[in-house]
Amino acid sequence: MSIDDRTARAWLSATIEPAMPAVAALVAQVGAPDAVRALSSGRSVPGLRPVYDADPSATGRAVLSDAGATGMRWVCPGEPEWPTALDDLASAGDLHRRGGVPYGLWVRGERDLATLTKQVVAVVGARASTSYGDDVAGDLGAGLGDAGVCVVSGAAYGIDAAAHRGVLAVGGGTVAVLACGADVVYPRGHEGLLAWCTSNGAVVSEAAPGAAPTKIRFLARNRLIAGLSRAVVVVEASWRSGSLTTLKWGELLSRACLGVPGPVTSEASTGVHLALREHRAELVTNAAEVRDALAPLGAAPVDGVGAVGLGRTRVTDRLDPRELEVLEALPAGAAGLTAEQLSARTRLPVAAVRHSLTSLAARSLAACGPQGWRLAPRRA
Amino acid sequence: MSIDDRTARAWLSATIEPAMPAVAALVAQVGAPDAVRALSSGRSVPGLRPVYDADPSATGRAVLSDAGATGMRWVCPGEPEWPTALDDLASAGDLHRRGGVPYGLWVRGERDLATLTKQVVAVVGARASTSYGDDVAGDLGAGLGDAGVCVVSGAAYGIDAAAHRGVLAVGGGTVAVLACGADVVYPRGHEGLLAWCTSNGAVVSEAAPGAAPTKIRFLARNRLIAGLSRAVVVVEASWRSGSLTTLKWGELLSRACLGVPGPVTSEASTGVHLALREHRAELVTNAAEVRDALAPLGAAPVDGVGAVGLGRTRVTDRLDPRELEVLEALPAGAAGLTAEQLSARTRLPVAAVRHSLTSLAARSLAACGPQGWRLAPRRA
Repeated sequence: MSIDDRTARAWLSATIEPAMPAVAALVAQVGAPDAVRALSSGRSVPGLRPVYDADPSATGRAVLSDAGATGMRWVCPGEPEWPTALDDLASAGDLHRRGGVPYGLWVRGERDLATLTKQVVAVVGARASTSYGDDVAGDLGAGLGDAGVCVVSGAAYGIDAAAHRGVLAVGGGTVAVLACGADVVYPRGHEGLLAWCTSNGAVVSEAAPGAAPTKIRFLARNRLIAGLSRAVVVVEASWRSGSLTTLKWGELLSRACLGVPGPVTSEASTGVHLALREHRAELVTNAAEVRDALAPLGAAPVDGVGAVGLGRTRVTDRLDPRELEVLEALPAGAAGLTAEQLSARTRLPVAAVRHSLTSLAARSLAACGPQGWRLAPRRA
Repeated sequence: MSIDDRTARAWLSATIEPAMPAVAALVAQVGAPDAVRALSSGRSVPGLRPVYDADPSATGRAVLSDAGATGMRWVCPGEPEWPTALDDLASAGDLHRRGGVPYGLWVRGERDLATLTKQVVAVVGARASTSYGDDVAGDLGAGLGDAGVCVVSGAAYGIDAAAHRGVLAVGGGTVAVLACGADVVYPRGHEGLLAWCTSNGAVVSEAAPGAAPTKIRFLARNRLIAGLSRAVVVVEASWRSGSLTTLKWGELLSRACLGVPGPVTSEASTGVHLALREHRAELVTNAAEVRDALAPLGAAPVDGVGAVGLGRTRVTDRLDPRELEVLEALPAGAAGLTAEQLSARTRLPVAAVRHSLTSLAARSLAACGPQGWRLAPRRA
């Protein structure tokens, strides 16, 4: 039996529940064709009932042909259109027994997915949002869109929809990542929104065409929203909101984890406030602050400056002179300095020092500990 | 010329602008009587024009007598009614060229100030508050009052008044710290509120009886609000709100610095959000979370348990069994653990671990760094 990589991956998507860690590990270990050869002949894998398919190549080709006929294309790891940020999922571990790089993505929409997802921020939150949350998510979407940042979300009611609509309203790009098949309209009421996303961005899913949205697929889907993004922003979330899973994936993937506060009298913001209290997310209040958080230490600059000139660009190249001065004045040890002390060192006004510190902290260059401001510890 | 300590301090209050660092330093160095002898004979001190008073003792006695006649008493450092927390101001430095332990406090109200201020939280914020802010401040005041915590604030319009009213409404104690004389009704519209504060708590000031409220006295006054308190909670504050000075004093005095978030669309919360973003305040959403922040590591327990039994009580004595288990599982080094890992170590559910971590962090026993949860570094 011979099967090529793309067809093997299509077979996996159509036959196996998405994001099973054991299957993802097998694919990573032996490659998709050999994994399919093993699995289609009944090889047992933890969590998976044996599967038998005498001709997986024919099955895979049929899936690809059917999907193509309904306007979906199949984008696989390593291909030019593949969003390479998703490869980070290979080493991010599991959550709710789901994890790993997807075998591929079913994509609807004209725009090139790799180009569309060059600068992406996830804006997620409660389905049962308030009008405050919808306003904030819409403003964030529009502000990010104005800045050329693509907004990824889950096309659910509430915050997701408000974020998509916000960025679409300013002509920006957006990606809707579904828990069901990319060809399934869910929720039903979002047929128009999904069509709008398709024409101005993309609707994607790792689940098989026609797949129904299930609870476990929502949890698996959330890792893709975080995986595609440089930052995850939660706008409203109650204590047990699924969007906190997306935030958790952001943490596992070392994405910037951000939360928008709301009235403490609002149930819809309790989960965000808890995440902020536990320092699992940084507080942001607008799109500019989200953008400030987009360039973590060691990462390539988000605006593509690094692609031009003398090869690798350091993150410090993007700092303004004041930020550089404050950065240079920061101590490296545990004993930090107050903004006032840094003001004395740099001879900059305290307000300017504070502003620079906020910006440096958002870039993970400065950290504020119990003993004051210091250089952020380098990540492993 | 002979003058006793109380009379000398009354003279200082009546003659010298409050909170001048050079005068406070002189008093700390030579004592109030010698300081008065020097100052009343024209001794020059930075920031102070020379003063001449041939009989400061007579002046001081007259001030005390007049104040007594209008229902004020003079409470001095070292006296039984003195709130000893204010002594921390001796080493807290200056802000806006104001600082130091006050010479004494003019007090209106029947209740003993030391008893009243045993457990105090400052609730401060914008004069131009929103109805959301007023509601939250009122709820905080009531929640703290219900728990037997006294609320200190500045009796200004807006958040201050809402906090006073909240605690008064549940029959709790409150202290209004004024920038003008304790006998001056300012703002005029708060005559009733100040009378209510007097009958259920205290109205206090370091400024001379009859003194007018000036900008510099407001700034000096804010250090007393923080100094009296174990925690400073800012409910609403715009970018340049004076309540951020109170928060800054809280920081200088190592008080718990707390902020209540609000809608990001509200101008009235911008200063609080900035303080939270800069980690100058911890996010709190209700009175219970404020109370959780009241017992910093090494401090005496706030509920007085430490007064009974085997002498000094450790802060860990007040933890519940789960919190103790999580505390014991926390690593001491820089490399921390996730809540999930701690859950595996302790065999407690992740949600219980998270809850315990929040509580431990509020007590400054646990800290969350870029590499996970660990034991909080001990304060110097």
